Amino acid sequence: MTAGPSAANRSTLNKADKGATIGGTAAREDVTARMRAVAEQITDQLDRLLPPAEGPRGRVVEAMRYASLNGGKRLRPFLTVTSAGLFDVPEARGLRAGAALEMVHCYSLVHDDLPAMDDSDLRRGTPTVHKRYDDATAILAGDGLLTEAFAVLGDPATHPDARVRAELTLGLARAAGAAGMVGGQMVDISPERVHLGLDGVTDLQAMKTGALIRFACRAGAILGGASEAERAALDAYADDLGLAFQIADDLLDAESDAEALGKPAGQDAEADKATFVELLGIEGARGRARELVESAIARLEPFGERADTLRATARFVVERES
Amino acid sequence: MTAGPSAANRSTLNKADKGATIGGTAAREDVTARMRAVAEQITDQLDRLLPPAEGPRGRVVEAMRYASLNGGKRLRPFLTVTSAGLFDVPEARGLRAGAALEMVHCYSLVHDDLPAMDDSDLRRGTPTVHKRYDDATAILAGDGLLTEAFAVLGDPATHPDARVRAELTLGLARAAGAAGMVGGQMVDISPERVHLGLDGVTDLQAMKTGALIRFACRAGAILGGASEAERAALDAYADDLGLAFQIADDLLDAESDAEALGKPAGQDAEADKATFVELLGIEGARGRARELVESAIARLEPFGERADTLRATARFVVERES
Repeated sequence: MTAGPSAANRSTLNKADKGATIGGTAAREDVTARMRAVAEQITDQLDRLLPPAEGPRGRVVEAMRYASLNGGKRLRPFLTVTSAGLFDVPEARGLRAGAALEMVHCYSLVHDDLPAMDDSDLRRGTPTVHKRYDDATAILAGDGLLTEAFAVLGDPATHPDARVRAELTLGLARAAGAAGMVGGQMVDISPERVHLGLDGVTDLQAMKTGALIRFACRAGAILGGASEAERAALDAYADDLGLAFQIADDLLDAESDAEALGKPAGQDAEADKATFVELLGIEGARGRARELVESAIARLEPFGERADTLRATARFVVERES
Repeated sequence: MTAGPSAANRSTLNKADKGATIGGTAAREDVTARMRAVAEQITDQLDRLLPPAEGPRGRVVEAMRYASLNGGKRLRPFLTVTSAGLFDVPEARGLRAGAALEMVHCYSLVHDDLPAMDDSDLRRGTPTVHKRYDDATAILAGDGLLTEAFAVLGDPATHPDARVRAELTLGLARAAGAAGMVGGQMVDISPERVHLGLDGVTDLQAMKTGALIRFACRAGAILGGASEAERAALDAYADDLGLAFQIADDLLDAESDAEALGKPAGQDAEADKATFVELLGIEGARGRARELVESAIARLEPFGERADTLRATARFVVERES
């Protein structure tokens, strides 16, 4: 989505900070273009990996395609492809692993949007899967996407070394399961959610969105046969980035209108869920996001200039407008 | 569940046939006892593999446990453990892979029971997950079980050779995904379902229940490093067994009462879904199930006496009373 002049004013960080440090204006434009290019490749990859919507089961495949080919930033696969790039991993491998991660992300959105969960009618400006199809199809499409992700990771085309494939499988399952994304969503819809303070909301974010973002970077490291030190550096980068991403999301939710987000704005406040903005205030949240970006960037020191795109990505996640 | 004298009359095959061929009375009692023993081991394994229901995400883990520790025949893991036994696979490996398969089976029951799908209140005589908890928790518990299955398969504890782990992952994902179980459930709840004839219902069964039963045997072959010929023999056995199992299910559904099944009987007829019993008649369905059992048994010829338990299992699936 191209941001118009009015959207440009909605950035979540002070304009004065832009371009002042590593990842300035040029790098920001560059990472946006790169991200768009990878997003197109991921959509293309998903289109090839998902079966054609034919035959009597066609409806569920059609819904899986609807749920996953509908654009989006593709941040997680971008992190996988870019992290893999640090280790000269052939691009096709990063794209396959990234597409698997995106399937998991898309499945989580489909299930989260269901009437029994967040009951959302719109996603990226278009009807959610259960609105476009029906609840049963949406449940099955989510199930299908989650399952297909593991078929992609188990396939020798993703990496010729089975140890890499098995490690990707284990890592994705742990990030997406009850100790990660699924557990986070459980907390997010629980009655206890409204009583969470800053620590609780931070823990929730680490599970619900952080675990998959961390694994997005980790997948690149696994594909590249990274050392323990390199993995630890990327993990730390991803943890800072993931939290910054969530804070920026809360800022966007508080500040933006529905048009810019492609979904109803202010949803979290309506549901009485404490956000980072409520807990820290607008300025406090902005400050915390900025600190996290600087911290994330510092974590990349061992990789030198090779990690400049990841640095620019960290800036991007808090400066984005949707 | 122990069958009382009255339940014994509900067997789906003519009593006169029992014990007349390979897998007679002695073998039948033996396989029932073995199945019960493996079922206990699987429940034990699931208990150890699933995380404790603690902390803020405890509710989803509790629901995952409720959905999977609630007994059941554990046919799929039994097939995995027994097939693995043909190749002298250490028991612990078969049990882990079998537990992963059972997680997938249990997740499918949780999601199929949801109001948006089959809307079932009872399963194995107890409230379904969404009745005991709520719809959102049931959706997440299913997602969690599906995800956890792949964590088990990706874990080196399941098999030290990563090629085996990756092959198990790929096979389970294909069996459970849109080309298998998920696709079959889509067809089963589609408006076209009521127009299906014998071929259509057979294809539906092959996807919805057959694919996972086939993979249950295939998993044993993968764990055991079976030859292509051995894999093909087990695949053919499993396909016959899976279809016989479904026909027996339809016979039980038509003949049994709710008490014996632990779920409302006659559900399929109410929903206007053509079953094998409607398409073939009671006697026709019994005859077809018997043919399939004989065929399944014949497929095991290459394994000689070592496959006697699998032979007795084939008899069991059509002679069971629930």
